[in-house]
Amino acid sequence: MAEIETRLRELGLPLPAPIRLPPGVLIRFPWVNVRGDRAFVSGHVPLAADGSLAQPLGRVGQEVTPEEAYGAARSVGLAILASLRTELGDLDRVVAWLRVFGMVNTAPAFRAYPMVINGFTDLILDLYGPERGRHARSAVGMAGLPFDVAVEIEAEVLIRP
Amino acid sequence: MAEIETRLRELGLPLPAPIRLPPGVLIRFPWVNVRGDRAFVSGHVPLAADGSLAQPLGRVGQEVTPEEAYGAARSVGLAILASLRTELGDLDRVVAWLRVFGMVNTAPAFRAYPMVINGFTDLILDLYGPERGRHARSAVGMAGLPFDVAVEIEAEVLIRP
Amino acid sequence: MAEIETRLRELGLPLPAPIRLPPGVLIRFPWVNVRGDRAFVSGHVPLAADGSLAQPLGRVGQEVTPEEAYGAARSVGLAILASLRTELGDLDRVVAWLRVFGMVNTAPAFRAYPMVINGFTDLILDLYGPERGRHARSAVGMAGLPFDVAVEIEAEVLIRP
Repeated sequence: MAEIETRLRELGLPLPAPIRLPPGVLIRFPWVNVRGDRAFVSGHVPLAADGSLAQPLGRVGQEVTPEEAYGAARSVGLAILASLRTELGDLDRVVAWLRVFGMVNTAPAFRAYPMVINGFTDLILDLYGPERGRHARSAVGMAGLPFDVAVEIEAEVLIRP
Repeated sequence: MAEIETRLRELGLPLPAPIRLPPGVLIRFPWVNVRGDRAFVSGHVPLAADGSLAQPLGRVGQEVTPEEAYGAARSVGLAILASLRTELGDLDRVVAWLRVFGMVNTAPAFRAYPMVINGFTDLILDLYGPERGRHARSAVGMAGLPFDVAVEIEAEVLIRP
Repeated sequence: MAEIETRLRELGLPLPAPIRLPPGVLIRFPWVNVRGDRAFVSGHVPLAADGSLAQPLGRVGQEVTPEEAYGAARSVGLAILASLRTELGDLDRVVAWLRVFGMVNTAPAFRAYPMVINGFTDLILDLYGPERGRHARSAVGMAGLPFDVAVEIEAEVLIRP
C-alpha cells in the first residue's frame, strides 16, 4: 500500500533523481549499505530535483542563512529517502529510524546546529510518525564538508529484510 | 540490587536533573532511542545539577582549560547516565558499552582531545568496570558545538530489553 | 586459508606494529571492541611500520598535500587491519564491513575529503572485494585531530564470533 510514498505525494514532496557528483569525483561506496536488517546510510548532501548539488553552497552563518540551512537539511532527508527507495524498492521497509548524525558546515560564530538539523527531523517525523520515525541525534559544527555543501547527514535505520 | 546506583552513591556522584534547554530551542528527538536490545544515545552536553547548561562555555584551549574540559566530559557522562536511567528505569540494564564518539569544541591550536574525553571514559569504567564499560572511542576536534558547549558525546550501548 | 593475509602479502602490504602513543598519553579504551558479532573500531590514525605516528602531520591543504593525505588514509586502513588481526586472530573473521567514518584535519579552504578517504576505501575493497568490503561512508572536515594527524577513521564491521 506504499504508505510512505502516499504520504510523500500528499505532502507534495517529490524525491530527487540519483545523485550526480561533480565531474572527476570518483566514489566506490554505496549510498546505502544493507546488511541483514540494518541499513547504514552514507553521508548525504542536499540535492536539486535533477540530482545535482543543491544551491546555495557555503558555510551556515556566512554564505548560507540558517533558514536556507534548515531547507538544506530537509533536502538531505529527501536525498536519503531517494537512496533508500532505490536500495530497498519500498520505503515502507524502513521499520525504525535508529541514529542520525547531522553535520553543519559552520561559520566561526554560528552555533544553532539543532535548529538546522530540525529540517531533517521534521521531515522524517512527518513521514514516519513519532514511533517509527524516532531517532537519536547529534547536530554539530564541521570545519568543512565535501563540495562545500551546507549540511551532510549520515544515519542508520532498521529494515524489514 | 541497583549496582550502578549504589556505585554512584559510593562515589558521591548525583545525576543531574533532566536537561533544560535554553528558551526557544525546540527539539523533537529522544535523548535515548531504545530499539530492541540497542540503545542509541543522542549527543549530550555538560549539565549543571538543575539540568541547565554547565559552565564554562566556549572553546577548549581558549575560554575553557583542558582541566575544565576533562570535567565537562565527566559531566556529559553523568547527563547520559541520567537520560539512560529515565529511559531504562535502571542503569543495571546497560549490559555493555559499545561505541563512544567524543567531540571537543576546539581552539585552533588545541589537540589533546583524548585527554579531554578521558573524563567520560574514566567515569564509565569506574562505574561499569573494565568488561561492561569497555567501549570503542574516537575523540576529535569540532569547529563548533550547540550552545557553544565545550564537549558533546554520543554513544551506543547494549541493554537488557 | 588466511585469504586476507595472503592478499596482503600479494600486494606487498605489511601491517604496522601496534600503536605506540607519544609519551604521557594515557588511553583506557580498546582499539577494537568486540561484542557478539559486532566489532566497533575506535578512531585510528596513520602509523609508521614501528607503530609510531606516521609523518607528515598537519592540516590537509596546508602542511599535508591531498596525495599525502590519500596515503595517510591508506595507512589508517593498515593500522585498523593490524588492530583487527590482534583482536580477532584472523582477518578472515571480518565477514562484512558496515560503516566507515572518515575524518580529515582540514585547512580552511580544502574540501576534497572524499578523494582523501578513498585511500582507505580502495584498500579495503582491494582486500575484501566488493561484496564483503562494501561500506557506508562519510568523509568530512574536522577542526582538529589528536596529535595533529591528517586523517582519522572509525568503523564498524560484522564478524564471525
